[in-house]
Amino acid sequence: MMFKRNKITIIGAGATGATTAHVMALKELGDIVLVDVAPGIPEGKALDIWEAGPIERFSLKVVGTTDYELTRDSDIIVVTAGMPRKPGMSRDDLLKVNAEIVHQVVAQASQLSPNAILVILSNPADVMAYVAQKASGFPYHRVIGQAGVLDSARFRAFLADALQVSPKDVTAFVMGGHGDDMVPLVRYSSVGGIPVEKLLPQETLNQIVQRTRTGGGEVLNLMKISAFYAPASSLAEMVEAILKDERRVIPVISYLDGEYGEHDIFVGVPAIVGGNGIEKVLEVEFTDEERAAFAKSVAAVRKPLSMLNY
Amino acid sequence: MMFKRNKITIIGAGATGATTAHVMALKELGDIVLVDVAPGIPEGKALDIWEAGPIERFSLKVVGTTDYELTRDSDIIVVTAGMPRKPGMSRDDLLKVNAEIVHQVVAQASQLSPNAILVILSNPADVMAYVAQKASGFPYHRVIGQAGVLDSARFRAFLADALQVSPKDVTAFVMGGHGDDMVPLVRYSSVGGIPVEKLLPQETLNQIVQRTRTGGGEVLNLMKISAFYAPASSLAEMVEAILKDERRVIPVISYLDGEYGEHDIFVGVPAIVGGNGIEKVLEVEFTDEERAAFAKSVAAVRKPLSMLNY
Amino acid sequence: MMFKRNKITIIGAGATGATTAHVMALKELGDIVLVDVAPGIPEGKALDIWEAGPIERFSLKVVGTTDYELTRDSDIIVVTAGMPRKPGMSRDDLLKVNAEIVHQVVAQASQLSPNAILVILSNPADVMAYVAQKASGFPYHRVIGQAGVLDSARFRAFLADALQVSPKDVTAFVMGGHGDDMVPLVRYSSVGGIPVEKLLPQETLNQIVQRTRTGGGEVLNLMKISAFYAPASSLAEMVEAILKDERRVIPVISYLDGEYGEHDIFVGVPAIVGGNGIEKVLEVEFTDEERAAFAKSVAAVRKPLSMLNY
Amino acid sequence: MMFKRNKITIIGAGATGATTAHVMALKELGDIVLVDVAPGIPEGKALDIWEAGPIERFSLKVVGTTDYELTRDSDIIVVTAGMPRKPGMSRDDLLKVNAEIVHQVVAQASQLSPNAILVILSNPADVMAYVAQKASGFPYHRVIGQAGVLDSARFRAFLADALQVSPKDVTAFVMGGHGDDMVPLVRYSSVGGIPVEKLLPQETLNQIVQRTRTGGGEVLNLMKISAFYAPASSLAEMVEAILKDERRVIPVISYLDGEYGEHDIFVGVPAIVGGNGIEKVLEVEFTDEERAAFAKSVAAVRKPLSMLNY
Repeated sequence: MMFKRNKITIIGAGATGATTAHVMALKELGDIVLVDVAPGIPEGKALDIWEAGPIERFSLKVVGTTDYELTRDSDIIVVTAGMPRKPGMSRDDLLKVNAEIVHQVVAQASQLSPNAILVILSNPADVMAYVAQKASGFPYHRVIGQAGVLDSARFRAFLADALQVSPKDVTAFVMGGHGDDMVPLVRYSSVGGIPVEKLLPQETLNQIVQRTRTGGGEVLNLMKISAFYAPASSLAEMVEAILKDERRVIPVISYLDGEYGEHDIFVGVPAIVGGNGIEKVLEVEFTDEERAAFAKSVAAVRKPLSMLNY
Repeated sequence: MMFKRNKITIIGAGATGATTAHVMALKELGDIVLVDVAPGIPEGKALDIWEAGPIERFSLKVVGTTDYELTRDSDIIVVTAGMPRKPGMSRDDLLKVNAEIVHQVVAQASQLSPNAILVILSNPADVMAYVAQKASGFPYHRVIGQAGVLDSARFRAFLADALQVSPKDVTAFVMGGHGDDMVPLVRYSSVGGIPVEKLLPQETLNQIVQRTRTGGGEVLNLMKISAFYAPASSLAEMVEAILKDERRVIPVISYLDGEYGEHDIFVGVPAIVGGNGIEKVLEVEFTDEERAAFAKSVAAVRKPLSMLNY
Repeated sequence: MMFKRNKITIIGAGATGATTAHVMALKELGDIVLVDVAPGIPEGKALDIWEAGPIERFSLKVVGTTDYELTRDSDIIVVTAGMPRKPGMSRDDLLKVNAEIVHQVVAQASQLSPNAILVILSNPADVMAYVAQKASGFPYHRVIGQAGVLDSARFRAFLADALQVSPKDVTAFVMGGHGDDMVPLVRYSSVGGIPVEKLLPQETLNQIVQRTRTGGGEVLNLMKISAFYAPASSLAEMVEAILKDERRVIPVISYLDGEYGEHDIFVGVPAIVGGNGIEKVLEVEFTDEERAAFAKSVAAVRKPLSMLNY
Repeated sequence: MMFKRNKITIIGAGATGATTAHVMALKELGDIVLVDVAPGIPEGKALDIWEAGPIERFSLKVVGTTDYELTRDSDIIVVTAGMPRKPGMSRDDLLKVNAEIVHQVVAQASQLSPNAILVILSNPADVMAYVAQKASGFPYHRVIGQAGVLDSARFRAFLADALQVSPKDVTAFVMGGHGDDMVPLVRYSSVGGIPVEKLLPQETLNQIVQRTRTGGGEVLNLMKISAFYAPASSLAEMVEAILKDERRVIPVISYLDGEYGEHDIFVGVPAIVGGNGIEKVLEVEFTDEERAAFAKSVAAVRKPLSMLNY
């Protein structure tokens, strides 16, 4: 075969994993293998997505399975697996359980696709990216976590809404961890090139920053399960950047080896993402306040990592 | 305002309704109002979809609500509401419950958007289209049910798979009811213009026809809930045909007023769908066998209708 | 008819006008009427574009004509008409000839479509937008000139190339006239939110600014006719913003009525473009240097205007 | 580099070649090298197309050149080169000139990209495909000519127009040579699966068949140069089918090695087109009349071939 489609494995056929498969099929990013431990679920969802092909006009294979063998020789492995917190379970217990799950699925999948690029969504993605790298032994640039694309999208949506303009023209910038410690850089956010600080009062900006930080919780509180539509689009954008070697400049969770003065950690930074995965981490200048916020964010990633005995 | 976006109301924020909102947003078909009785669910799902806007580059409003007032002046009303069968509930009881639900939501929504076109997915869509027309009092051509686009898509997917060719080039044709009584017209199905009867043995074709008839059940049995990805694409294709006045020739559930010798019934037939809704029902010639199958299919729609006391 | 497609008239079936029709058809922006004085040319090009419909899957009418009657009730009128400079012709003579052409075609077309929005490309677009408004008598917000979308696109392409990153993530900003007097605001240009001044040396930035200013000439010198591919995309983006009421924040040629201290002139500024045409001009703060450059740019528009006896 | 974009060379930067580059860039099919002998033209057109990237959001390289070296290691080579008939030149003389041009450009390009697939548009494409195969020495399945996709598109457009329906739902089928001898198979043409013979009177169908046969001339007579928009879309569809290994069932010019009883000739037939180029020629059953028409069409290809001394 001279030309063949890329092969994308998505681990976890819950709402996020299946919606990611759906969005990637609509964008024709490649043949898709949806894997889950629960028999029937990945097969059914993949079949349903594939049956939309004649309408949406994609000539792809979309299969669901509980058998990792079908993922062999994937180009991309997206990890969405993990469980939600159950009543009575501590945050730390949950972390250990999910680290175990991620370790196990990545170990299995990476062995069958030793040249793949890993894209990690499992929560918390900065910690789980670290786990995934250890489990796979992959070079660091081939392990990428998702947080910033989603956080920036929410930041941009809220800015666009406040200004009543199209989100297409809003550029925003979020660094650091995913969650309360994220660092939305208002200073580097603009609308059609015009800094948002010139367009919105500081109080409104503060509210938007705060809403961005708690954006995941806002959706969760409303619909009782974690957000999955915007996360799926975030994953698709990252995978597209890799497969098309686009060299996008987007905020992703990357391993740091000295950048920003940090070592041996995965954390959210702006980077060039292309055909090799992380092509380059970009270092931006911080104000003192931003530097402190970033440091706090990094610390918030190191703490759970320390519990995982690496 | 000189130009404004179309406004689409989707009733029911379950997997089907929400996925329909998602697909329509990705296709930029219009601003979307997602309505449900369960507070939080439509708001959360709509928010999550809307937050993908900066990534997917749509400049739309997507809102969720329990308040019909927000649906006012919609151009399109898509009805996906209904409940699944519960243990101990007879098929007839379920029908009555869902007819009541559809009647009520359509009565409410149609009053606020008296010029809208109704697109009905609620199961069984041929019966529910009848209910929706009665509840709204809308002219018949402005009430359209979905079944054939989905059934044809499955038929096409299975044919493409059997031949190992792209589904883009497979044309297929399904008439009559949705379910075991549907009438897949193999005679009118082709691949790149070549009749499928020349390309596949009769036994394979029979298996594919049978799989098409039970396609909904196949997905349901696997994933334990009804299919929603391919149904969402089917609805989006129909709504796009209307909003862009495309005059698509597609199989839809239409009111018959003498066509095919039938009166006062909604049933699956090929039709031209455009800016007025159903522009024209197309009558195809039947073989004796096809005529009998279509008659059986029509009878299968009349029976439940007779229980609804119209 | 309940729903109908938008109708777009494009005046001038040269390379720019026809390519604009082509791009707009591929984007399904509406039915297209391509008008020119040379019989055969608009008909042939429109026919050729329309015949791509079954492949590109657009259900649009695309017609070419020499008869303005067919443009009646257009929603958008795009003006690309004008002649290139001939040997021995002074710049001023050319201006007068083209002003006459634009005046005449706009007078004719605007009378048949009194509610349309005018989008002007004819060169120099800032002067011709003024002419078009006079010829049509349309409210100022319904007359928009193209220059900045194209200039910014070139600026962004050159920045992306210098940095070897995707142009998707490059934001750039150009104001003032089209040509040597344009004002590329490096200060407001960024890559993934990071100011370009942090990423590229000043000398490289200066070269890029200079190349942007002469970008039209660079293409013209190579291929001996004016650029038409990127201009067509620029027009399509503006028309899409209007027809979908996107409220894009883009640089366009707008009438100024006090903004930036200027009156009774059309010049390139950032604006919100939506369903009413120009929704709002955005005023950015200038440095002294930028203010001087903008003033020079405005003066360069006033001079030719003064020759036209308005 | 783990993932890289496909590389497409387009030979000939006239209206057809450049528009093909434009359409392929808009579809993000790959990096594009546009080659021509006339210095400036390919560079200028490629630059203009590339500068649309920030607006159209493609992260591709588009370069123009007179130097074949830049085409090295292309995945696809599209050949549009050739000259139009000049006054006083016989059809046979023109054929010899263009065969010489095609031979030379293909010999040069195929040597630099020995694993590419050749897609031939140069006129007459069935003869020139033969020339290209000889010049390259490529296996037959890697040399494909364009005619049927365009002819079918016109056939479909005319049928859609006559029926006032969307071309999306019209399937049509054309075999044999490009031009007066083409064989539009009305019998295998349908609308939404319904045979066109049931929908349109025979006289109208005859007119449409005739208009299809002379479709190229109709456009040429109007705009004085050969059609290029619909041809560009035809080429893009074929190249997309190859690069995405879609296994499309489309009419293309393929080498016959016994199929339809013919040997050592390239002629228009339905085929499966995928990642290897021509995957399989499909043989349809003919009526006597169709068989005669196909034979005539084949003879019309053999005649000019016989003049070329292979």
